[in-house]
Amino acid sequence: MTIKKIAITTGGGDAPGLNGVIRAVTLAACKRGWECVGIRHGFDGILHADEFETGGTLELTPDTVRGIGHLGGTILGTTNRGNPFSYKVELPDGTSEVQDISDRLLQGFKNLKIDALIAIGGDGTMEIACQVAALGVTVIGVPKTIDNDLDGTIATFGFDTAVGFATEAIDRLHTTGASHNRVMIVEMMGRHAGWIALEAGLAGSADVILIPEIPFDLKAVAAKVNRRNARRRKFSIISIAEGAAPIGGEASYKTTGGIANLGGIGEWVAENLRPAVPNQIRTVVLGHLLRGGSPSSRDRLLSLRFGAAAVRALEDGKKNVMVGLNPPTVHHVPLEEATRKMKVVPVDCDMIKTAADLGICLGR
Amino acid sequence: MTIKKIAITTGGGDAPGLNGVIRAVTLAACKRGWECVGIRHGFDGILHADEFETGGTLELTPDTVRGIGHLGGTILGTTNRGNPFSYKVELPDGTSEVQDISDRLLQGFKNLKIDALIAIGGDGTMEIACQVAALGVTVIGVPKTIDNDLDGTIATFGFDTAVGFATEAIDRLHTTGASHNRVMIVEMMGRHAGWIALEAGLAGSADVILIPEIPFDLKAVAAKVNRRNARRRKFSIISIAEGAAPIGGEASYKTTGGIANLGGIGEWVAENLRPAVPNQIRTVVLGHLLRGGSPSSRDRLLSLRFGAAAVRALEDGKKNVMVGLNPPTVHHVPLEEATRKMKVVPVDCDMIKTAADLGICLGR
Amino acid sequence: MTIKKIAITTGGGDAPGLNGVIRAVTLAACKRGWECVGIRHGFDGILHADEFETGGTLELTPDTVRGIGHLGGTILGTTNRGNPFSYKVELPDGTSEVQDISDRLLQGFKNLKIDALIAIGGDGTMEIACQVAALGVTVIGVPKTIDNDLDGTIATFGFDTAVGFATEAIDRLHTTGASHNRVMIVEMMGRHAGWIALEAGLAGSADVILIPEIPFDLKAVAAKVNRRNARRRKFSIISIAEGAAPIGGEASYKTTGGIANLGGIGEWVAENLRPAVPNQIRTVVLGHLLRGGSPSSRDRLLSLRFGAAAVRALEDGKKNVMVGLNPPTVHHVPLEEATRKMKVVPVDCDMIKTAADLGICLGR
Amino acid sequence: MTIKKIAITTGGGDAPGLNGVIRAVTLAACKRGWECVGIRHGFDGILHADEFETGGTLELTPDTVRGIGHLGGTILGTTNRGNPFSYKVELPDGTSEVQDISDRLLQGFKNLKIDALIAIGGDGTMEIACQVAALGVTVIGVPKTIDNDLDGTIATFGFDTAVGFATEAIDRLHTTGASHNRVMIVEMMGRHAGWIALEAGLAGSADVILIPEIPFDLKAVAAKVNRRNARRRKFSIISIAEGAAPIGGEASYKTTGGIANLGGIGEWVAENLRPAVPNQIRTVVLGHLLRGGSPSSRDRLLSLRFGAAAVRALEDGKKNVMVGLNPPTVHHVPLEEATRKMKVVPVDCDMIKTAADLGICLGR
Repeated sequence: MTIKKIAITTGGGDAPGLNGVIRAVTLAACKRGWECVGIRHGFDGILHADEFETGGTLELTPDTVRGIGHLGGTILGTTNRGNPFSYKVELPDGTSEVQDISDRLLQGFKNLKIDALIAIGGDGTMEIACQVAALGVTVIGVPKTIDNDLDGTIATFGFDTAVGFATEAIDRLHTTGASHNRVMIVEMMGRHAGWIALEAGLAGSADVILIPEIPFDLKAVAAKVNRRNARRRKFSIISIAEGAAPIGGEASYKTTGGIANLGGIGEWVAENLRPAVPNQIRTVVLGHLLRGGSPSSRDRLLSLRFGAAAVRALEDGKKNVMVGLNPPTVHHVPLEEATRKMKVVPVDCDMIKTAADLGICLGR
Repeated sequence: MTIKKIAITTGGGDAPGLNGVIRAVTLAACKRGWECVGIRHGFDGILHADEFETGGTLELTPDTVRGIGHLGGTILGTTNRGNPFSYKVELPDGTSEVQDISDRLLQGFKNLKIDALIAIGGDGTMEIACQVAALGVTVIGVPKTIDNDLDGTIATFGFDTAVGFATEAIDRLHTTGASHNRVMIVEMMGRHAGWIALEAGLAGSADVILIPEIPFDLKAVAAKVNRRNARRRKFSIISIAEGAAPIGGEASYKTTGGIANLGGIGEWVAENLRPAVPNQIRTVVLGHLLRGGSPSSRDRLLSLRFGAAAVRALEDGKKNVMVGLNPPTVHHVPLEEATRKMKVVPVDCDMIKTAADLGICLGR
Repeated sequence: MTIKKIAITTGGGDAPGLNGVIRAVTLAACKRGWECVGIRHGFDGILHADEFETGGTLELTPDTVRGIGHLGGTILGTTNRGNPFSYKVELPDGTSEVQDISDRLLQGFKNLKIDALIAIGGDGTMEIACQVAALGVTVIGVPKTIDNDLDGTIATFGFDTAVGFATEAIDRLHTTGASHNRVMIVEMMGRHAGWIALEAGLAGSADVILIPEIPFDLKAVAAKVNRRNARRRKFSIISIAEGAAPIGGEASYKTTGGIANLGGIGEWVAENLRPAVPNQIRTVVLGHLLRGGSPSSRDRLLSLRFGAAAVRALEDGKKNVMVGLNPPTVHHVPLEEATRKMKVVPVDCDMIKTAADLGICLGR
Repeated sequence: MTIKKIAITTGGGDAPGLNGVIRAVTLAACKRGWECVGIRHGFDGILHADEFETGGTLELTPDTVRGIGHLGGTILGTTNRGNPFSYKVELPDGTSEVQDISDRLLQGFKNLKIDALIAIGGDGTMEIACQVAALGVTVIGVPKTIDNDLDGTIATFGFDTAVGFATEAIDRLHTTGASHNRVMIVEMMGRHAGWIALEAGLAGSADVILIPEIPFDLKAVAAKVNRRNARRRKFSIISIAEGAAPIGGEASYKTTGGIANLGGIGEWVAENLRPAVPNQIRTVVLGHLLRGGSPSSRDRLLSLRFGAAAVRALEDGKKNVMVGLNPPTVHHVPLEEATRKMKVVPVDCDMIKTAADLGICLGR
């Protein structure tokens, strides 16, 4: 098929680098004489085009993408309004039901004369991309996740920026921890995979690193803190992923009661560690600070490589693949493979061994 | 009095720049042929010298202060163990009582042949410095506060670094707020004075700034958020000082119940704003992240100027004064004046006017 | 006079913070119901309106200034094409002559129904502003200079960002200087005033600081380097302003020959220091790196305060004044006073004393 | 062989991350009960132990490596004094000759009871490591190069930090280039491989990228600049590696005369581009700024992984290998393989294609 016009969409949470992909796709497409449109807020720009005062799509040209490479977020917007294949539709009687409204999406592509779709997003977006592809639309996926938990790519843009910020945060807590002999707990993103907490914990010289892949024993954590206390390093830094859980599973800490209903696992650790160590304990939750900001040079580069590779894939007649990083080059993997499993931290990987070699407590 | 030997102490919470003062004092003193010792952990290095394996004091020479200017924290350590004039002493029977143990401090100075003390710290440290001075010790104070609430100086080191970090945090929240149409609340230090929340809020383009000096009306905040929603800026950023409170005083929000017992004012605002706006709301508490890190160039410079000025003050025969910044120069104010009142944000200052001119909601 | 419409112009070299002033002026003016236009590229947008495809002026509204506060440069552009009061005009015969074409400027203001002009710029722009004011136009000046050499204000935006970057540069040179036992020379902006080299030199722990205000003796510099060599600190960092000159004036180094015709004073020092010290010497010229980048939080804040204060000044009926910083507040000074003299580093100021106290060589 | 004591040396230019390797090696070795010593200044600490007042070696323990992970440079120092296998020795008659003094090195190892050597450095150091290994010493190499030109590893620490700084530099030049319609040339390290100029050029949105791997045609560069001028983007940014050269080889620009004798290729391009474009041209040479500074989180992590992997390699009985990164894991390659060839940018790699897709001029 000869391509004349492509569409771009960004889905899910924002990540530094989205604009870099948009810029690279646009420039590479225009260079080939293709037209390029961006869909606003995921697929809402097509599904609810009438709600957008200035139109649900945005023509993308070298002028519209000028100077956006170093900006966080996405000029297209993202949304959580829903998967067109299982869409919550409000009914006239005030109730709602889940419908498949993907025909509206297809009709929208047809009206806009779209020949191919470049879908930038995380696992949710990649699954929708698979379903859209199954309807006969040519789709190229571009992986995006702060958490780095997408399979099929060694790295995703946004992750390096997040690790950089989390490392800086740990740096900052060192001095105040040291001056007050405190235990400082830093909780960061990573519901199912602990990449950020592990890498930032290593880079920032944390004393304890707790990740979802390794259920932790609070006694081991307390022992580490107290060993440091005994050696006159009377402070400790704990880097913890939001999805980390004590041995026995999430249940055990969820049922502990009051505080866990409000705070996250960081506060739970604080509360339960308190009786076992003499130090004051303070918790910091990095939360949404990790998603924002200008992308690091590495993430800018990766987003440009991904965007240009997506266009070259289309030019080469590829379809229904996701671009990914396989150093030193980019490669393509079938879309359905990319979403089959989550990439978690292997418990015997060299970074885990490095942490152990450095004397960092991994929770057991 | 001819000075031959001086002591330095750092008290209270850590702040970026403490090491710069220590470095400048040491180099300036040694240049004059004086000896210089640092007291570890406030006055504990003298009051409890026996507890320090390597001694409660540290000889300071050009070699010991080499390369510390850009490091956060303090090589001397700080402590909260207590004011020697009202010291909590553990009694043999397991109880404790408050005693004046300042004679041990004086004796310590005498044993060490200290001719003058340079005390670096916040209002607590300056008050102790006043009391020490009243006992006949020559004292020069150097102001330190993240919050910038010390009177007698236009600025203190650590404050610029904190504002810089808080501004970066607000920057980061912009993209994620915008992509999800959220209200993002950033709570930062400032129990009695809102300098950080005001300056970072302005520099970071917050939409609402809430500070202790201006009790706020939640209705005004909701109106601002909804005005933005109506103008298709469907996200808002709220910069709030931990000491901000709704009109009617702290009482009103403390008695609201559950959540305020755990979270701070940021969570209280989130909880109470929720019914009044359609947006999702997320809270980030910067907390101890504000105290740490390498000092900004401005704070490094200020700390060096303060340290050198403290030594020149001693050389000039001054005593019982605090150095301060009175741009473009440093000056000296009597110690007792410096601690008399807190420097809060004047509600008619040009920064407040600027915020109003920019359309920022100040809570009323 | 009732104000209905104002114009803004940015002149001279770019500086981080220009967009902050534009944003604050626009928001503050629109809040008062005034119209606001920006003149492109200094006064060229009026003097040569026909050359601008999209018009020589830009309507400024809250929408056009959204999100520009943290961007370096100026959305209006600057220019060096010339002072309208002594304008180089190309004649038909290929020659050129200097003409006063200020009547075209006045006519332009009249056509656009401009009631007042806010002129943002350095000493050149302030002088033009004075001349424009003398023609009866209401003018408010806003000071801008990377070099911090404008009188009438304690600080200007862009300066803090420049000092921050220069300090970072000195930090970076420390490790490589130390590992190779080298003398590292960092040349930075400051033709007539050495503020940047002095403040960054102090904050970055330079060993030698050379500024235009203190003619230097190369023998003193060599002696300092060799003293450090003798004390096993076999590297030295020299922070030097581009306008620094050896005792005897610029002449002496300009006539030395070859290298000075190409390189700046940094290279001259390198060349002439080489015979006197055993170390390898390397020179880095920061040059235009100092002007760019996102403004620091301090510069963002200052630019907003200046912009809003300029509008309030107009509202209060002030005219022909420049806003300035007189901590803790902004103030106004008559335009002609502001341009009367340059603000250079006083050789007896506390920063110079601090440098001496730290053992830094100031070139004599 | 059972290992009881190991030595570490750092050779060549400094790079951010060296201290991270030292820290990881020390902690991992001590954890295994091994002793660990650092040799000062390459091998000088052994070859010229008498010249070091405090000894040519430094016992490394968890205490000596505490808190060094985020510091640039190396606590051991590096040196260029020479390869022990071809050492320039000063003779009594004032002349010098090249000798093989490796026996002194071997004797030194024997005296210190060293069982294995961990050599951290670039290609020069790896070659010496090979020669030392050939003498029967157990050696593990750890690759270090700012330029990223070492084969056998996908990445080296220091490179990410350098690319980050270079990208920031390009960012800064954008605003000043744009406001003055200038061509800004940024010259950076990369004598034989253009990785830094390529990656930073992409991440920083340069318009022209010139690297050693692709000899450039100045006409193509001028055409790119003039195309931008015609499209009202009247400024251009050129990212150039110091080893880039015009078609026809280095000779052609070296013989052009005067200026090239002083400046680098950046100045040569400026000089020769000037007649072909109407813009003012300015050159900035990043030089040694690229080597310094605190390592990025990525480089800190990589240095720790390399250091720990080196110790694990020894534990596993490996010898005469270099550790390297082969994402997602570390691996080992024979030392002689690692030094066999230089890793240059493949001219058909996806980054080069990306640059072309973005419309960046690559010099032809």
